[in-house]
Amino acid sequence: MTDLKFDVLGIGNAIADVFAHIESDFLVNENLIKGSMRLIDTEEATRLYGKMGSAVRMSGGSAGNTIAGLASLGGQAAYIGKVADDELGEAYGHDMRGIGAHFATAPLKNSSPTARSMILITPDGERTMNTYLGACTELTPDDIDPQVVGASAITYMEGYLWDPPAAKEAFRRAMRLAHDAGRQTALTLSDSFCVDRYRDEFLGLVKDGSVDILFANEHELRALYQTADLDTAINAVREDAKLAVVTLGEKGSLSVTREETHHVHAAPVDNVVDLTGAGDLFASGFLYGLARDYDLPRCASLGGLAAAEVISHVGARPERSLKDLALQNGFEI
Amino acid sequence: MTDLKFDVLGIGNAIADVFAHIESDFLVNENLIKGSMRLIDTEEATRLYGKMGSAVRMSGGSAGNTIAGLASLGGQAAYIGKVADDELGEAYGHDMRGIGAHFATAPLKNSSPTARSMILITPDGERTMNTYLGACTELTPDDIDPQVVGASAITYMEGYLWDPPAAKEAFRRAMRLAHDAGRQTALTLSDSFCVDRYRDEFLGLVKDGSVDILFANEHELRALYQTADLDTAINAVREDAKLAVVTLGEKGSLSVTREETHHVHAAPVDNVVDLTGAGDLFASGFLYGLARDYDLPRCASLGGLAAAEVISHVGARPERSLKDLALQNGFEI
Repeated sequence: MTDLKFDVLGIGNAIADVFAHIESDFLVNENLIKGSMRLIDTEEATRLYGKMGSAVRMSGGSAGNTIAGLASLGGQAAYIGKVADDELGEAYGHDMRGIGAHFATAPLKNSSPTARSMILITPDGERTMNTYLGACTELTPDDIDPQVVGASAITYMEGYLWDPPAAKEAFRRAMRLAHDAGRQTALTLSDSFCVDRYRDEFLGLVKDGSVDILFANEHELRALYQTADLDTAINAVREDAKLAVVTLGEKGSLSVTREETHHVHAAPVDNVVDLTGAGDLFASGFLYGLARDYDLPRCASLGGLAAAEVISHVGARPERSLKDLALQNGFEI
Repeated sequence: MTDLKFDVLGIGNAIADVFAHIESDFLVNENLIKGSMRLIDTEEATRLYGKMGSAVRMSGGSAGNTIAGLASLGGQAAYIGKVADDELGEAYGHDMRGIGAHFATAPLKNSSPTARSMILITPDGERTMNTYLGACTELTPDDIDPQVVGASAITYMEGYLWDPPAAKEAFRRAMRLAHDAGRQTALTLSDSFCVDRYRDEFLGLVKDGSVDILFANEHELRALYQTADLDTAINAVREDAKLAVVTLGEKGSLSVTREETHHVHAAPVDNVVDLTGAGDLFASGFLYGLARDYDLPRCASLGGLAAAEVISHVGARPERSLKDLALQNGFEI
């Protein structure tokens, strides 16, 4: 068995975020629903990009953001995701390695460009996402390095990976490899539309033990069990999952196992600026804690602290050292 | 004479801004002076980039930001600046055209990459800039399209252009073409170090009438006249310049001609987040007003309004429609 080298390996869609500020009329003219996320093709991506104003670009992707947070906490982090050999892909690699994460997935050549999500921000701060998956759809089982999976305490995957068919196989391979190496697997449900698309498959993975730790927010969990009542969903997931971590926004989080349920309050935030990345960064802190054998309430506290930092500014990656922040808040990190 | 088509043509160094948040130790280890701006070569740019964490990328450049603001006000805007035929250059073009500005400068091929300024942001919000000029240094007099200069009420240039020798010649050509077409020229001094490098030349351009409108903040104006006393500098510029516009930060601005001096208060800002772009956007509003024959105090008011918007968020380009903002504030725009 490989020596343990990484706290967490994140596997996800490697996506560049391209933000632009628009007036509300723009959404009306484009027939877009404010606050929605949709997948778009090359043609639509090109058309929409041509209409967007001056843009801000940063590396994103749900699991990528989680790994950035984990590295910022001082954790040993690794990432697997498919970019193209273009400038956005190079920037993605720079950003991942620049924070100290291991990232060695071979970039795609002579094919689709690096994925990008065009995020339209209206004056009320709401975000409407238009995601072109590009190179992400070419992540294959061959990209899953058994050495890296075997060397990671937890392999964390995003539900969004279930969209590209080859990535789904990669996802399945990673789960098998992790368990063969005696490691743990984690899944985030990503968003409620994603759950609607793959409900039975996700539920199967949780029930058959392929997934050890399930992350969901309340909307996703209710979508998974097709119920309007959160308690019903929580009672159901308690039976199905080894560990379910349910984020409740300003109401904090629940860590649910068959034996215990812990509610931890959210960390205080002076000024909430942008909710993007809250769930991704909560996972950073929670997973760091799990990998370092914290008890569940302490995992949830650290998750809450990381989430509080990321929602206090624009952008889904931390702007300050989460390790320093954790030390200042009494964590021995 | 060409018909008037553009309110303002901006000519400047076309630079991508690459931001990263760092801890203060980073500056100490790199021997960097907090808040400074320095020009760096390819090797240093590559080295420093490799050490920066996860970065945010947006199009910048002082005159580029001014033109973005002018377009946001609903003005007819054009831009000349040299990018390379790489992805940062394409993004620069997208951002310029996406806001409705005319931008047709041929990208540089098979040579230096698009310029980038690596901006290191410490937890106190201070910015330390490391600028690699790259393709900007290849702007030549041939890039100055006489049709565009002749069609622009005002040709606005940044002092930074004086750094690359060929760009300086382009700058001189643009001034001549503008005046030959009966148009006006404007210069911003860019920063006090830039003034220190080219004091005599800048002063010569103002005194001999090559520059009709001079933009400066108080530091730059004092550097131009090598005096610690602002009043002394203002009295000097009154004699030398046809029109000098001096920004005073929270104290507002002065518009100075031989006959009159107008002090206009700064527009109120609830929460100052990031001062970057304040001068660039002040120029957007002021120039829009001048091109539309506003009186000087009204030009300064509109400049102040645009500056107030840009300092209320991170980034040097407006996040909302400045035209809407101006309409809400009683401008008939």
